[in-house]
Amino acid sequence: MEKLVGACMFGQSGGPSSVINSSAAGVFTEALKQTDCITAVYGAAHGIRGVLNEEFYDISQEDPKELALLKNTPSSALGSVRYKLKAEKVDDTDYKRLLEVFKKYNIRYFFYNGGNDSMDTCNKVSKFMKKSGWECRVIGVPKTIDNDLDVTDHCPGYGSAAKYVATTMMELKLDANVYDTPMITVVEIMGRHAGWLTAAASLANVKGLGADLIYLPEVAFSTEKFLADVEKKMKQNNGKCMIAVSEGIADEKGTLIAEKMNENIAKDSFGHAQLGGVGAALANMCKEKFGCKTRAIEFSLMQRCGAHLASKVDVEEAFRAGQAAVRYAVKGTTDKMVLIKREMSNGKYKGKIGVMSVAKAANTEKKVPLEWIINDGTMLSQEYIDYALPLIQGDCKAPLEDGLPRFAKLKKVLVEKK
Amino acid sequence: MEKLVGACMFGQSGGPSSVINSSAAGVFTEALKQTDCITAVYGAAHGIRGVLNEEFYDISQEDPKELALLKNTPSSALGSVRYKLKAEKVDDTDYKRLLEVFKKYNIRYFFYNGGNDSMDTCNKVSKFMKKSGWECRVIGVPKTIDNDLDVTDHCPGYGSAAKYVATTMMELKLDANVYDTPMITVVEIMGRHAGWLTAAASLANVKGLGADLIYLPEVAFSTEKFLADVEKKMKQNNGKCMIAVSEGIADEKGTLIAEKMNENIAKDSFGHAQLGGVGAALANMCKEKFGCKTRAIEFSLMQRCGAHLASKVDVEEAFRAGQAAVRYAVKGTTDKMVLIKREMSNGKYKGKIGVMSVAKAANTEKKVPLEWIINDGTMLSQEYIDYALPLIQGDCKAPLEDGLPRFAKLKKVLVEKK
Repeated sequence: MEKLVGACMFGQSGGPSSVINSSAAGVFTEALKQTDCITAVYGAAHGIRGVLNEEFYDISQEDPKELALLKNTPSSALGSVRYKLKAEKVDDTDYKRLLEVFKKYNIRYFFYNGGNDSMDTCNKVSKFMKKSGWECRVIGVPKTIDNDLDVTDHCPGYGSAAKYVATTMMELKLDANVYDTPMITVVEIMGRHAGWLTAAASLANVKGLGADLIYLPEVAFSTEKFLADVEKKMKQNNGKCMIAVSEGIADEKGTLIAEKMNENIAKDSFGHAQLGGVGAALANMCKEKFGCKTRAIEFSLMQRCGAHLASKVDVEEAFRAGQAAVRYAVKGTTDKMVLIKREMSNGKYKGKIGVMSVAKAANTEKKVPLEWIINDGTMLSQEYIDYALPLIQGDCKAPLEDGLPRFAKLKKVLVEKK
Repeated sequence: MEKLVGACMFGQSGGPSSVINSSAAGVFTEALKQTDCITAVYGAAHGIRGVLNEEFYDISQEDPKELALLKNTPSSALGSVRYKLKAEKVDDTDYKRLLEVFKKYNIRYFFYNGGNDSMDTCNKVSKFMKKSGWECRVIGVPKTIDNDLDVTDHCPGYGSAAKYVATTMMELKLDANVYDTPMITVVEIMGRHAGWLTAAASLANVKGLGADLIYLPEVAFSTEKFLADVEKKMKQNNGKCMIAVSEGIADEKGTLIAEKMNENIAKDSFGHAQLGGVGAALANMCKEKFGCKTRAIEFSLMQRCGAHLASKVDVEEAFRAGQAAVRYAVKGTTDKMVLIKREMSNGKYKGKIGVMSVAKAANTEKKVPLEWIINDGTMLSQEYIDYALPLIQGDCKAPLEDGLPRFAKLKKVLVEKK
């Protein structure tokens, strides 16, 4: 493979996670080392939009110490974006503009960090550059707390979010058990289509402090069955029930329970209306039915940005994924997404980096296997525990300063427009 | 002071915290050492009710390793209770029963861990035992994330909850800044009457990542002024605004804003009804007014049970407070609450343990000084930062096992009823 010399562009896209910046740290530190091939390292402001607008930072200006701190800084340090490139045959304006910018700055390496939609962007950019005869190596770096990218064993971002969910469930369970009066707690966890993150509530069961009932979008949700499940658990557990639900649970027709329940409320217009998440709606329903204390809790943004609870395995894998993207590209790989393969030796987990077709990554969605969802759709099996537990191992967080995390502070020096 | 020989009873009361069990660890380990005076160490199941019902655990049966793990186990390991003893002259049934139990088990030391209401229990028990001629040394151990007990510089539980609030605010701020579109985030924090915990949102400003606006119950809240404040901040901050509000904010007449806004909603019955916290209500109001993306976040129970983010200073002080209660009592002190005095030497903070009248602790409530609330009631002054920052220093959490916290597992062997 011939040596390709030019600038590299890195962008962050989609919802933030605890480790998306760790991948950035991996890309940047490796790219800055590859001085033979990579002549400049750019970080796009707000993903692909920064490229289109010629707004990107000169990463060589950054203090290496701050780049290292990125590893433990949550969210997207460069800014993110939700911007879908139209199909080229519908509108090729953006593509032409990208080619123009790539040529102007001699961009020969394009790295993009995100989930399915970001891999779609990667794929489209890759195909267009190839068609246009502009040699540019394109590698996607996976990231999503949803863990729904296919082929890769799991996605960077998932382990840390899962660790947040499992640890916090344990703490909440201890809190919920404090009074000996009946109490139903409904915890709402992110995940529109795939229940991976909600499934992590079952990891707390390894320590005997998990959710009693777990509902994922993979299984059609019935409110009647739900109430029966809760009643049974309350009888077993001295009036207590701890429930974890995916925000995306839906009925057998695919209608979101959150939407359905809010509709009913609007129709009935009974006194205590309650919009908002499905967790609050289900807690309300339990209150009506069982007349006991209920509490709805949303993990909200904390589950995706709680870097103080990041998993060491996850932080390191995210870093290595970024690093590997650069190494693969320099060696000639293009049109791929980095993935993680699971290797077990002597019962010890190891995540090995590989690559897959970026087109495939863009267009598939991985759900929790149905055979891992047991107890009549209310619990995860040992297979899931075995799958997820290695991913939440170890602590890795920002150093403390004034008792608070010392996150990276980038200078973000904009590259002068040509 | 004559040596007093007999059993000791310890109870946990009120809402849990990250460090209430650390105080328990302090009481238990010290009491088990004082074999000259303390003949048995009992832990009441669900506080004073466990005493009334003769339901308490024999702590000498516990593995010392598990008692040590209590230091980093959130919530109330013995179970808690919200039970107010009636005034003796109204109904002395409970008092007579307590005396009976104290005599039956020769309870000569009574330690009770909690906030104002628990100190009220302590005070009443102390006065009644004295009046009845039953020599029993009574010491309260303070605990409250609300930090509203007077005389003591601060309360065990506050530092850890404040660290949770400050750290999480920083992470949320990074998350909220990811897209360059306008966005208002309203974070609701515990505190019905005193704004101490919400004030901790300002600590994140030390790292440049705090709340832009902070509203405490100490200052009358006006929705008109609030909207004007938000508008101003959005102009300054490129359309972003991060707000922290106490659940207990109220208008100039003392009416809770949460109640008021829900009332209005009921009256107007406009489409998107929203009950629940004041944070959600204010976020909704901002959405109507500014038409931009808003998000309401509740720290809910996580702020009080998030022991994975406990402050080392807090965990240690809670432990020492429990330990000191036993030492004071053995030396003859009674009718007191343990307190923490602030000592500064060479700019370094040290918490020194002392005692104060338990009656005084029961009947006072400490609020955030108005002179510490600046910027027209929207921010905390440097005096607050100087006060609170030493309390959130250092990490101290449960050891990891399977990547998850290893919390204490007590046997909880019930003492056989006599």
